[in-house]
Amino acid sequence: MNKRITQAMGDATREVFLTMLGMDIHADPAYLECNAPKGAEGMVSLIGLAGQWIGTGSISCSSEFACRIASQMLTMEAPAVNEEVLDAVGEITNMIIGGFKTAMEDCLGPLWMSLPTVIYGRNFIARSMSSSEWNVAPFTCDGARLEVKVCLTPNRQPEHGVRTDLWHMPQMPA
Amino acid sequence: MNKRITQAMGDATREVFLTMLGMDIHADPAYLECNAPKGAEGMVSLIGLAGQWIGTGSISCSSEFACRIASQMLTMEAPAVNEEVLDAVGEITNMIIGGFKTAMEDCLGPLWMSLPTVIYGRNFIARSMSSSEWNVAPFTCDGARLEVKVCLTPNRQPEHGVRTDLWHMPQMPA
Repeated sequence: MNKRITQAMGDATREVFLTMLGMDIHADPAYLECNAPKGAEGMVSLIGLAGQWIGTGSISCSSEFACRIASQMLTMEAPAVNEEVLDAVGEITNMIIGGFKTAMEDCLGPLWMSLPTVIYGRNFIARSMSSSEWNVAPFTCDGARLEVKVCLTPNRQPEHGVRTDLWHMPQMPA
Repeated sequence: MNKRITQAMGDATREVFLTMLGMDIHADPAYLECNAPKGAEGMVSLIGLAGQWIGTGSISCSSEFACRIASQMLTMEAPAVNEEVLDAVGEITNMIIGGFKTAMEDCLGPLWMSLPTVIYGRNFIARSMSSSEWNVAPFTCDGARLEVKVCLTPNRQPEHGVRTDLWHMPQMPA
């Protein structure tokens, strides 16, 4: 299962970097990380996942690499972190975790994805309330490091479930 | 609609503080806030919401008030931010946004809720990728301030939709 998760994370990340940013990114060996609170700095982007499984997808990188992502995406200079850079990192997160989600739905059932939140600072702690470990897929690109992380745990809380008696979603695919 | 949202935010917050923490909390007037990137400090807890509507729920407070929440919840001293304090704030977020979600589902259709992520730092920016405004419900409790925020926007991305052809969820309520 973890192998399938890291494979899907790797495929989604490489594809988004290549097709959306024109950047070739090298996958380093993936590993599991326990969910201890850890100091972070630079950019962390988070997106919620929920369905029969529940969890979080995350992208983290330095502020310099975030500016590089924004420059490639918007074909403009981004010398420092600004609103466009935060939005570019959020959009890339949406695409990578979205690609991962689609690849995993055959195995995990349908997953909903929330909107990304991007956090930027010099010294902060981001802790997810999952009891499960994180799958970490590290990448390097021209000496810079990017980490894609996913934690997923079976959704044991029935109140998170879909109330099918209320279910009307004409615009959704049948 | 905004009035109904802020009413549900207020009801859920007061109920969780009273029943889970034994704390009486005073609701100040709610307002709308645009989604500009804003510096934050202390504690911000985020939880994703997705369904026919998509967005984020958030609780923010000072680190001192977060310690107070943990002390009340765990009936132990919490003089400084540690793992238990982060988890207590995450759990309170889960309960408040969960109560809000349940109250709003008659109006917005079923919503999935992801796991909370708690961010703690002295100076960071947290920016959500929503184009919509945030509903902000501020509260005071013994001079401390707590803000409950929700942004929700119609989910226009069909790829976020439930693929009912894959839908098997025997453990969920029918």
